[in-house]
Amino acid sequence: MNKNKDFPKRYTIKDLVKLVNGKYEGKLSAEHLIEGISSIEENDKSKITFAENKHFLSRAADMAKGVVLIDNSIEDSNIDNVIKVDNVRLSYAKIAEKFKCTPYHASGIHKSAVIEDNVALGKNVSINSNVYIGKNTEIGDNTVIAPGVKISENVVIGKNVEIHPNVVIECHSEIGDNVIIEASSVIGSEGYGYITNDEGEHYHIPQLGNVVIEDNVEIGSCVTIDRGTQSSTVIGKGTKIDNQVQIGHNVKVGQNCLLVGQVGIAGSSILGDNVILAGRVGIVDHVELGDNAIVGAASIVTSDIPADSFYLGNPAQDRLQELKARAVRNKLPNYRRELNKLKDKDL
Amino acid sequence: MNKNKDFPKRYTIKDLVKLVNGKYEGKLSAEHLIEGISSIEENDKSKITFAENKHFLSRAADMAKGVVLIDNSIEDSNIDNVIKVDNVRLSYAKIAEKFKCTPYHASGIHKSAVIEDNVALGKNVSINSNVYIGKNTEIGDNTVIAPGVKISENVVIGKNVEIHPNVVIECHSEIGDNVIIEASSVIGSEGYGYITNDEGEHYHIPQLGNVVIEDNVEIGSCVTIDRGTQSSTVIGKGTKIDNQVQIGHNVKVGQNCLLVGQVGIAGSSILGDNVILAGRVGIVDHVELGDNAIVGAASIVTSDIPADSFYLGNPAQDRLQELKARAVRNKLPNYRRELNKLKDKDL
Amino acid sequence: MNKNKDFPKRYTIKDLVKLVNGKYEGKLSAEHLIEGISSIEENDKSKITFAENKHFLSRAADMAKGVVLIDNSIEDSNIDNVIKVDNVRLSYAKIAEKFKCTPYHASGIHKSAVIEDNVALGKNVSINSNVYIGKNTEIGDNTVIAPGVKISENVVIGKNVEIHPNVVIECHSEIGDNVIIEASSVIGSEGYGYITNDEGEHYHIPQLGNVVIEDNVEIGSCVTIDRGTQSSTVIGKGTKIDNQVQIGHNVKVGQNCLLVGQVGIAGSSILGDNVILAGRVGIVDHVELGDNAIVGAASIVTSDIPADSFYLGNPAQDRLQELKARAVRNKLPNYRRELNKLKDKDL
Repeated sequence: MNKNKDFPKRYTIKDLVKLVNGKYEGKLSAEHLIEGISSIEENDKSKITFAENKHFLSRAADMAKGVVLIDNSIEDSNIDNVIKVDNVRLSYAKIAEKFKCTPYHASGIHKSAVIEDNVALGKNVSINSNVYIGKNTEIGDNTVIAPGVKISENVVIGKNVEIHPNVVIECHSEIGDNVIIEASSVIGSEGYGYITNDEGEHYHIPQLGNVVIEDNVEIGSCVTIDRGTQSSTVIGKGTKIDNQVQIGHNVKVGQNCLLVGQVGIAGSSILGDNVILAGRVGIVDHVELGDNAIVGAASIVTSDIPADSFYLGNPAQDRLQELKARAVRNKLPNYRRELNKLKDKDL
Repeated sequence: MNKNKDFPKRYTIKDLVKLVNGKYEGKLSAEHLIEGISSIEENDKSKITFAENKHFLSRAADMAKGVVLIDNSIEDSNIDNVIKVDNVRLSYAKIAEKFKCTPYHASGIHKSAVIEDNVALGKNVSINSNVYIGKNTEIGDNTVIAPGVKISENVVIGKNVEIHPNVVIECHSEIGDNVIIEASSVIGSEGYGYITNDEGEHYHIPQLGNVVIEDNVEIGSCVTIDRGTQSSTVIGKGTKIDNQVQIGHNVKVGQNCLLVGQVGIAGSSILGDNVILAGRVGIVDHVELGDNAIVGAASIVTSDIPADSFYLGNPAQDRLQELKARAVRNKLPNYRRELNKLKDKDL
Repeated sequence: MNKNKDFPKRYTIKDLVKLVNGKYEGKLSAEHLIEGISSIEENDKSKITFAENKHFLSRAADMAKGVVLIDNSIEDSNIDNVIKVDNVRLSYAKIAEKFKCTPYHASGIHKSAVIEDNVALGKNVSINSNVYIGKNTEIGDNTVIAPGVKISENVVIGKNVEIHPNVVIECHSEIGDNVIIEASSVIGSEGYGYITNDEGEHYHIPQLGNVVIEDNVEIGSCVTIDRGTQSSTVIGKGTKIDNQVQIGHNVKVGQNCLLVGQVGIAGSSILGDNVILAGRVGIVDHVELGDNAIVGAASIVTSDIPADSFYLGNPAQDRLQELKARAVRNKLPNYRRELNKLKDKDL
């Protein structure tokens, strides 16, 4: 039915070589147009891919008809068309960036957007359909706000920010430059704070702090980050958060941390820099993880973790200790039998 | 205040008998109108319910004043009005389908919908208020798009699809026929792929693949499914996904799988057909589960699982082994004491 | 760029003293204007804070320049300006309530809201931009519906309710008075009910019940609550639900329960009153938790739990038993060695 799918993003091999500071050796002309990236298996003449080790270099030699990024050090790859670079993966990422889908990037303000008083919009912003922006909010240059995003009042958003559809940003949130937030996430919701009276009823303590998302942070979809009780919940520079992560009020996450899918961090806990929380890790409230700490998948952290350590388990402990405990676990029924034998002999 | 709740869906007993190919025996006339389903307890003359075993048949005989679906094999149920069928539950499902709430099904395109260039809409589609549809997107016959749904560009959606409010579907997603997606889910968000440089900064690898949702798939609310890195994240035909499930980039889920609430599947893992993941199961990246595998609630799968197996635990292992290990666990303090006794004697 | 952030909420010290029935002793005039709350560290002359024990009272004496709430029993606090009260935390909560951000509270109906036939709106309601309200729905006095909320047909919502942006409320849901629902939550989605035929295909059983949210319930962001199969999924009066909680069809939660972040309750389970589920607790289907039961973080409840008990673990058991089992776990490699020594001696 619909025959006109456009391919607006095309670059010559020459363009791409220049982008990654590479060296081209191949049969295709340097003016040949590349229209996208692909896996090695699907690499036709209109595509570019990459190959990083012997296994993939060999597969590329067999089947890659388009262009392949390879390391500078490779002499004879037997691949039809290569661009040689210092860092293959980083170069691939730079090129892939050029082919990204950018559906919400038409500059200007859609007529259906609802923008309250005293909102300050930077240069070249894209405010898409059905966006809501509350009063006094500031949005920096080049920022893209996708359809359906709801930004409350007194929010500050930096430059080159990309906010996907239906994200909600509550009042007083501060978002830095180059931040990406995927669809349907919620920044700055009310945190979970209650006092219980003598009748067992829970009275809500209003959470009047905010959320601070620093520069270069990336946040997945359906992530929830609560605002602080009196000050800020902070996500440090360069930290990357995967889907469905929950971050409680007053949490401080350091710089360049990696929080993988479905992680949960309870209120007031603190992560240092470069901390890695694998998928589904849970952190209880009021604990501290030192710089460079790593926590293995599905672990539950119930007390402080030293810097540079690798923890695992529920409750989480040093990973080697945890693996020892696990190794023994399945042998326990045997111990029972052996213990019984010894007891019988002993009688 | 509001007295006019309409009940637009009414069917005669005769209609319903025909629908399920049943046999009616009862006091109420075949022209009597049924207005909805109910539990046995709440079964008045305007409702239909079902009873599947001795316990429920007996309760129905006591209290059901409306119509009750029962099995063909039951001779004297003592229930006032019965429809006898081959498969009680399946017949109930067919009838319940007729009483479903269909609030978003007014055909046509709401004037507030924002539809970009070159969008192809099938016959009898319902595009509700504040829907956004990006360019080149195709939507099949009879499909219902509820208020607030955001569909990006170059998306293909099949026939008879039902998408609930505020769902977000990112670019290049492919959705088959008869798919249902509940509210606020996100299909095709950017996956979690990073390379880390020597300074510890994480550089994002753009994920330029897509998501493919095959025919007859049903997806719950607040589900997140990331698109592939270079190719597709795939959900196979007939698979049913519950709320708050997270599916990482490049995952392939087979046909007729059941993924229960809060399940998480990390990148590049593969599920065969008919796999059942109970609630809260987590699957690490790059593992494979064979056809018909079952994983028990809250288990964490850390390596491949054979076809036809039943696994449980963290890390998941054969369920019987896991249960043996668990049975011993609480007796361990006793072992300690017995071991001590033996050691003391031995001195 | 944007110099005019307004501070619409200001109260004299006299106002606040009256609100909490307190006694003021301080250097600042009773007419002095307070503009917000703060932590003790950030307490300048325009702010109010609280101090509850020796540690915080001492810090407040050192650094709090504004007003500090303290207990009646404190004679000489050495704090510049105090309001003495019976219950410090409760008084703080009452005052904080006055400084809450209320961005969506402009009364009236935004012109972009889409309101179907026969909708009944109470007095002083705020229906913000791009809200959708389905037919026959009723909304009570003073209720605030934020931008982008989607309310289906035949829904009843009470008075003084606050619904944050992009929440979705499906048909026939009933929401009581004084309820708060944070952004992007989904109330009344289709539950997960299937019958499997002989070919392994799963046929959906339409869930035609509803969700009932009683008075004074508070619900976090990205929470999903499925409607009942034939009757209601119920959240009892005064219960507080944190972010990303998933509640399956037919669940009944009692009054004044606390469900912390990422909790999951599977279908048909029942919680009594005053039950506390710590973060990440999972409850399987068809179990019952007695009044006042407490379940520790990340536990998985697989069978009934008695009233007044404290359970922990996976599977959850009495907390003391669980802690004993955990205490032994790391010593198991030692047991192995000791057992071996005894066996060798025994040969």
